[in-house]
Amino acid sequence: MNKLNLSVIPGDGIGKEVVPLTLNVLDTLASVHGGVKFEYEKYPWSCEYYLEHGEMMPKDGMAKLHQSDAIYLGAVGNPQLVPDHISLWGLLIKIRRECEQVVNIRPAQYIKGVKSPLAEPNDFDFVVVRENSEGEYSEVGGRIHSGDDEIAIQNAVFTRKASERTIRYAFDLAVKRSGKVTSATKSNGIVHSMPFWDQVFKEVGTEYPNINIESNHIDALCAFLVSKPHHFDVIVASNLFGDILTDLGAAVMGSIGIAPAANINLNGNYPSMFEPVHGSAPDIIGQGIANPIGQLWTAKMMMDHLGLEELGSLLFKAIKETIGEGIKTKDLGGLSTTEEVIDYINAKILT
Amino acid sequence: MNKLNLSVIPGDGIGKEVVPLTLNVLDTLASVHGGVKFEYEKYPWSCEYYLEHGEMMPKDGMAKLHQSDAIYLGAVGNPQLVPDHISLWGLLIKIRRECEQVVNIRPAQYIKGVKSPLAEPNDFDFVVVRENSEGEYSEVGGRIHSGDDEIAIQNAVFTRKASERTIRYAFDLAVKRSGKVTSATKSNGIVHSMPFWDQVFKEVGTEYPNINIESNHIDALCAFLVSKPHHFDVIVASNLFGDILTDLGAAVMGSIGIAPAANINLNGNYPSMFEPVHGSAPDIIGQGIANPIGQLWTAKMMMDHLGLEELGSLLFKAIKETIGEGIKTKDLGGLSTTEEVIDYINAKILT
Ligand SMILES: CC(C)[C@H](C(=O)O)[C@@H](O)C(=O)O
Ligand SMILES: CC(C)[C@H](C(=O)O)[C@@H](O)C(=O)O
Repeated sequence: MNKLNLSVIPGDGIGKEVVPLTLNVLDTLASVHGGVKFEYEKYPWSCEYYLEHGEMMPKDGMAKLHQSDAIYLGAVGNPQLVPDHISLWGLLIKIRRECEQVVNIRPAQYIKGVKSPLAEPNDFDFVVVRENSEGEYSEVGGRIHSGDDEIAIQNAVFTRKASERTIRYAFDLAVKRSGKVTSATKSNGIVHSMPFWDQVFKEVGTEYPNINIESNHIDALCAFLVSKPHHFDVIVASNLFGDILTDLGAAVMGSIGIAPAANINLNGNYPSMFEPVHGSAPDIIGQGIANPIGQLWTAKMMMDHLGLEELGSLLFKAIKETIGEGIKTKDLGGLSTTEEVIDYINAKILT
Repeated sequence: MNKLNLSVIPGDGIGKEVVPLTLNVLDTLASVHGGVKFEYEKYPWSCEYYLEHGEMMPKDGMAKLHQSDAIYLGAVGNPQLVPDHISLWGLLIKIRRECEQVVNIRPAQYIKGVKSPLAEPNDFDFVVVRENSEGEYSEVGGRIHSGDDEIAIQNAVFTRKASERTIRYAFDLAVKRSGKVTSATKSNGIVHSMPFWDQVFKEVGTEYPNINIESNHIDALCAFLVSKPHHFDVIVASNLFGDILTDLGAAVMGSIGIAPAANINLNGNYPSMFEPVHGSAPDIIGQGIANPIGQLWTAKMMMDHLGLEELGSLLFKAIKETIGEGIKTKDLGGLSTTEEVIDYINAKILT
């Protein structure tokens, strides 16, 4: 029996509602497989934990995570309780960085039964490969002067190492997909980091002569995700641009509630982390209507990552069929509760 | 007779095709008014000009612009000829900064006859107030080390002065509109500039107790522009975020070809500049199919700015009726040429 140790962090808000329920689905998948078992180490790290302990996770928390095979996260943050920069930099971004999850992979595709806000969503299917360790998200910077003269300076730090590995990941992915990579840039307005990014993109591109490459400014690219999402296959982007493009991808799919993300450690020295793109949604807590699809699609990515692709495919098939059969939450125009959707998917996997 | 001196810079690509033709419309408006005359000072500053002269505009160019009542610009940039950072920072961004056009106003609204990619575009009508002088667009930064160790550092500079005047402009505009301001932030990921921006937003907000305020992270806000554009009225954003939101606004309207922009000098010491949001579109040059609506809507904003609101309204009415009657270019699903659209609008104004 292959025992896989999963660190489970439900986090805040709907994360706490959805994550525990989806563990049943993981167990079902394991039982279907027969040769694998998931063991869960559950951690209550969250904004509430912070209010009690003055930190988002205990000092030895990271060491515990490091021992697991993967981290399964719900959602982090609840600005009503704890300012975002504390909760996120103390948990989500901290794990991404200290577990060296240097790329963030976020697929978006047209799913039958999910009503896209687009009039003609046209079967799009793209993946955003997002730099996940540096860039515009940086603690380097500060303020000077006060009152009317106050100035805030924010540094964005782009290393060749991080840019290159992200871009290379995108090209490698494109080799396995349709052979096209689009780079998000803004070198016409942002004149130090973005021309550097463009240069690395071009250089790595020469190693992949069979891959089609294009570069779009982030403003135009956002517009294109709305006007022609089917045009794209692999999109590679900096931390901030990847963040923006993936929320937009989720919007174009029809709901932020279904979008998944995988924070990948490329060296295998620490675990990767799997989290939905959505936040903790404090506004719908306790109603039982949170959409579990983002969390489950995330679990599918975790299966694939753990080498259990057949379980990943099984889960994804069950997800799509369930939505296709109209079993879906309110945000997708359905009437089902979180639990009903999960139960249905569970049952599908077993048949 | 009130003589108004306009600096006209067609710029590159379709700017050169569209701008000259739209001057007829300005003349028509003046003739209808009776008491005003537009005098044009035309400048050929463009990428081609650069290839000939080694600079995007002559040394005394800025001084010439300073003398005019407004600047009417087509489009700048053609990366095939001149790298963007040279053409844009040598002309477009240079004028924005040296004429102290510190805010950039960009409306987006549902226009009948323009097919939005959204299934239910729902009569949205919002304005993005964009900081136009600093922020993420900054020449501060550079590189260190080379090869595998190379690092690029990009500074974003946010001053209280610039943030505050932009935010105040947005609040003042909201007073005249529906009384709601949404601020674009990303303080959960970008921990120096964005919390500063949020703080200024909150502080200025306290001076407007009757205005409804909300703050959305840029990723969520982009998603909302797709899922519920009608929710928004005035959106205030930093330079980069404003850039992204306005291209997205144009996409949601149905074409980047119709979106206008006004770069406003708040002190009246230098002229303001009016330019469409679209670029020079080198791919459709010479076909006579460029959409002139962005340029003309921009001209409407120029009329309003020059105190000729009745002409602005007349022009906007003519624009909307023309589109409504199906006289539109290819990008809007029509069959008309640039010239036919302009002629039709001209005729409308005269009737
Ligand atoms: C061309 C570019 C520098 C410019 C900008 O980002 O400001 C353009 O996209 C715009 O929005 O006017
Ligand atoms: C919560 C926030 C810091 C985070 C990010 O921007 O990375 C989120 O938006 C995401 O995309 O995972």
